[in-house]
Amino acid sequence: MRIALAQLNYLIGDFDGNVSKIIESVRKCREMNADLVVFAELSLCGYPPRDFLEFDDFINRCGLAIEQIAAECHGIAAIIGAPARNPDIKGKNLFNAAWLLADGDVKGMAFKALLPNYDIFDEYRYFEPNRSFNVLEFNGVKIALTVCEDIWNIGPDPLYVATPMDELIRQQPDIMINIAASPFNSDQESERAAVLATNARQYRLPLVYVNHVGAQTELLFDGLSRVLDAEGNTVMELKAFKEDLQYVDFEFDNERLIPLKPPQNHNELPSKTSLIHDALVMGIGDYFSKMGFKKAILGLSGGIDSAVTLALAAKALGPDNVLAVLLPSEFSSQHSIDDARQLAVNLDVKHEMISISNGYNSVLDSLKPYFDGLPFNVTEENVQARIRAVILMALANKFGYILLNTSNKSEAAVGYGTLYGDMCGGISVLGDVYKTQVYDLAHYINRDREIIPENSITKPPSAELRPGQKDSDSLPDYAILDQILYQYIEKRVGPSEIIAMGFDEATVKRVLKMVNTNEWKRHQTPPILRVSPKAFGSGRRMPIVGKYLS
Amino acid sequence: MRIALAQLNYLIGDFDGNVSKIIESVRKCREMNADLVVFAELSLCGYPPRDFLEFDDFINRCGLAIEQIAAECHGIAAIIGAPARNPDIKGKNLFNAAWLLADGDVKGMAFKALLPNYDIFDEYRYFEPNRSFNVLEFNGVKIALTVCEDIWNIGPDPLYVATPMDELIRQQPDIMINIAASPFNSDQESERAAVLATNARQYRLPLVYVNHVGAQTELLFDGLSRVLDAEGNTVMELKAFKEDLQYVDFEFDNERLIPLKPPQNHNELPSKTSLIHDALVMGIGDYFSKMGFKKAILGLSGGIDSAVTLALAAKALGPDNVLAVLLPSEFSSQHSIDDARQLAVNLDVKHEMISISNGYNSVLDSLKPYFDGLPFNVTEENVQARIRAVILMALANKFGYILLNTSNKSEAAVGYGTLYGDMCGGISVLGDVYKTQVYDLAHYINRDREIIPENSITKPPSAELRPGQKDSDSLPDYAILDQILYQYIEKRVGPSEIIAMGFDEATVKRVLKMVNTNEWKRHQTPPILRVSPKAFGSGRRMPIVGKYLS
Repeated sequence: MRIALAQLNYLIGDFDGNVSKIIESVRKCREMNADLVVFAELSLCGYPPRDFLEFDDFINRCGLAIEQIAAECHGIAAIIGAPARNPDIKGKNLFNAAWLLADGDVKGMAFKALLPNYDIFDEYRYFEPNRSFNVLEFNGVKIALTVCEDIWNIGPDPLYVATPMDELIRQQPDIMINIAASPFNSDQESERAAVLATNARQYRLPLVYVNHVGAQTELLFDGLSRVLDAEGNTVMELKAFKEDLQYVDFEFDNERLIPLKPPQNHNELPSKTSLIHDALVMGIGDYFSKMGFKKAILGLSGGIDSAVTLALAAKALGPDNVLAVLLPSEFSSQHSIDDARQLAVNLDVKHEMISISNGYNSVLDSLKPYFDGLPFNVTEENVQARIRAVILMALANKFGYILLNTSNKSEAAVGYGTLYGDMCGGISVLGDVYKTQVYDLAHYINRDREIIPENSITKPPSAELRPGQKDSDSLPDYAILDQILYQYIEKRVGPSEIIAMGFDEATVKRVLKMVNTNEWKRHQTPPILRVSPKAFGSGRRMPIVGKYLS
Repeated sequence: MRIALAQLNYLIGDFDGNVSKIIESVRKCREMNADLVVFAELSLCGYPPRDFLEFDDFINRCGLAIEQIAAECHGIAAIIGAPARNPDIKGKNLFNAAWLLADGDVKGMAFKALLPNYDIFDEYRYFEPNRSFNVLEFNGVKIALTVCEDIWNIGPDPLYVATPMDELIRQQPDIMINIAASPFNSDQESERAAVLATNARQYRLPLVYVNHVGAQTELLFDGLSRVLDAEGNTVMELKAFKEDLQYVDFEFDNERLIPLKPPQNHNELPSKTSLIHDALVMGIGDYFSKMGFKKAILGLSGGIDSAVTLALAAKALGPDNVLAVLLPSEFSSQHSIDDARQLAVNLDVKHEMISISNGYNSVLDSLKPYFDGLPFNVTEENVQARIRAVILMALANKFGYILLNTSNKSEAAVGYGTLYGDMCGGISVLGDVYKTQVYDLAHYINRDREIIPENSITKPPSAELRPGQKDSDSLPDYAILDQILYQYIEKRVGPSEIIAMGFDEATVKRVLKMVNTNEWKRHQTPPILRVSPKAFGSGRRMPIVGKYLS
């Protein structure tokens, strides 16, 4: 039996587009003489469809699309992911289903039992968990068909009381097929590889795994669909961050189904930094193409964050589709202007320079009756950042650019940024990348030649909103700050444990308080491309009004 | 047996504050000779604690607080809501528990079985559902103790496969006690009343129901805790939107426990408009007091939205704590300025007038090299709105005001507003109030005397961002628009059904498309005080990148 894996980039709710993509792959696979082609979880409607699932109209369109695809399934079968109505009056109205289509019809279904409802996942919001398990038979092969999370309940502290494969294995399946929607984060690939291999070995079955690829706003699907043999070896792996379509032949040998492909050599995993780089490039590219945008604009300060953002945007959209705007004030240093210009030249990106002095001074003039005699403080700093945003948004509105946000995760965490100022943008490129990781990205971007001027990397970080300002005036050194933030945000470790790791008590308490009291600011920021296991946004839901560690 | 109901306003994560409040009530109830005092769901930590629940430190603090309160429970028992650790290795780590405290110790616990995970609720994110049910015995009374949603699975299309009271009733309880966290919306009180009465009648038991009161950012808890007899009659009801503490005596009569209080006369429900009014006033007040803010600022245009917002803010915070700023441009009409001024005078609120012309012209001057020769369009409109925001935020930053957002739900729905302009603010007061409802609120505010100038109510709505502009140039009449929005947003009805109701097809499609394509804008708006069953914000989760009805 020849099984093909179709790893595609879907657009949520775009039934016409998704169905044509799927049908095109079905045809291609038939030409390759595949017996079965497997698509990802909820491939039909894209993942995550969120509250679109609450619309009857949306579910009806899923049903029509299933019929269209089934009609195409002659001489080949397909497994595809789509919601299914729950016929029982009790419980939620939908299942998250894998549909087996063949001979122009629906031949079988498997419903997801384990519904992830943590971090960015909300599946129990929509779906009833499956409670009855049956293998599906196709061409004499018994398939244990599961959906994503169904095979993840294997650790020492299982999140769910039941494990679907423990039920299915009793019916002696020949192969496991798992359709998934497993987004990238920099730890995910090693964890996922372990989960897949553990399942194959534990149940002594080959495993076909098909994932999404492409970005859905903040969620970045890395693909890496694959086939494992019953010993847990990978015999085939599809591309990372790209669409791909490949197949493997299986044959019975001594009543055991075996992939006719030797185990792959174990590839060295690419560095985390290169994975994050590629994920962000895909994230920018898909955000623009799926929203129907072409051109990006950003404010280029000469600092490291906007420099890295610009390099990533130029890579994702092409240098011709990016405009860098230098927006100096009286506090901007000449070296910052020079560095910014040099970067634009190195990247072959068009740049403009517009002074904010006029706008800044006019606004302060209007406020003179109120501010007269009061000292310069964060108010005036914020006015600068906000006038920059007004100018960038005006250019964006007039010429059809989308503003890229350049804030990093360290700043977003402690609220070191101006709301409606430098926190503006259609999408946040670095909002899940700590400052220390931004430097890693800069070095990676410069791996072959100096693209980002060395000076942008080596100079002390500064917002340049008052004379001689440095980030270190207000914040602990990033090397310390980022470690504390990582423990608190990614690892969800409390203050006493972080202090016990050897960090200064006052610093820890100050940092955690800054994180918690700035929740209101993060509430109003753009979606953040997610590259860590715990990004700000829908994966981290904190009270705004509250008093905890604050 | 004397049972007291303690309806309190908690602050999320504020263990010191919440515990003192609870202990104070325990003492007061002991003085009243109550045998048992009942507090709301997760009262100890406030509701909703969200991802604070993922911190071990947070759960430890809950445990310590339980011990503190238990130590106070001598001569009186208390039922209080707090998370409890799940001793089973399998499943999620926590239960949402009701704790029975007496004689200085924990005497029993009941775990929530039905975990709401729709709209604004995310409980399955944190909690394992209970699967084993036992009544608790206290002073010879068998209590069927449940938590909120546990008694809501009673309609013709039940959301859950099991119903906890069907299990508990087998153990022949004498009374039901339900601790809740049931936020206000304008339909909620009648639905809640029906659910409580249905339970009392169905299980032929008296019911004690204790809810939260007070606002937690966008969620507005209305209280209205109550006691019902076994016939479903309300014998006592606590206040709406206010803390309250009352008790009812119960006695056995023929082996049935009976409240010693006659059914209340059926009160006429207050109008929806007055409920929304009171909810919003509480929402503003609690947002400020719990965030530690005192003073609000807003831009006063002379239009109806900012007028109603100002009146609500003056009521919530006191006129002395509110500053209204008129920010006229060359497109502002004299009557708008006059109306705005008159309103400030009527409300006894301080107002200032700051022209935006300087800032606006300076920014456009800076952009002249790029905009020269291009026609005035939405770009220049947005610049006006954004300069207003810069000025308001500068005043807010300098003098410690918090900016109130004045956008209404109709605008938020169709994206009729400027991001980083009039969409700014710490909290959105009217973002869940359709334009037509804003007029209802204005009439309600004027019920005794003209506070909001009649002219602000009767004139055609306009953003006044270009000469002669009216909302109706860009949008359907609000009377039509709001009905379509209501069907789509609150009722989740698809386009063909809305058209079948008699609305113009092109208008329906245009409106739905506007709603869906403006998701990115709403993603960056302030939290919205929730007064409807389906507000923008955490209760409505839509893809940003997507292509459905758009």
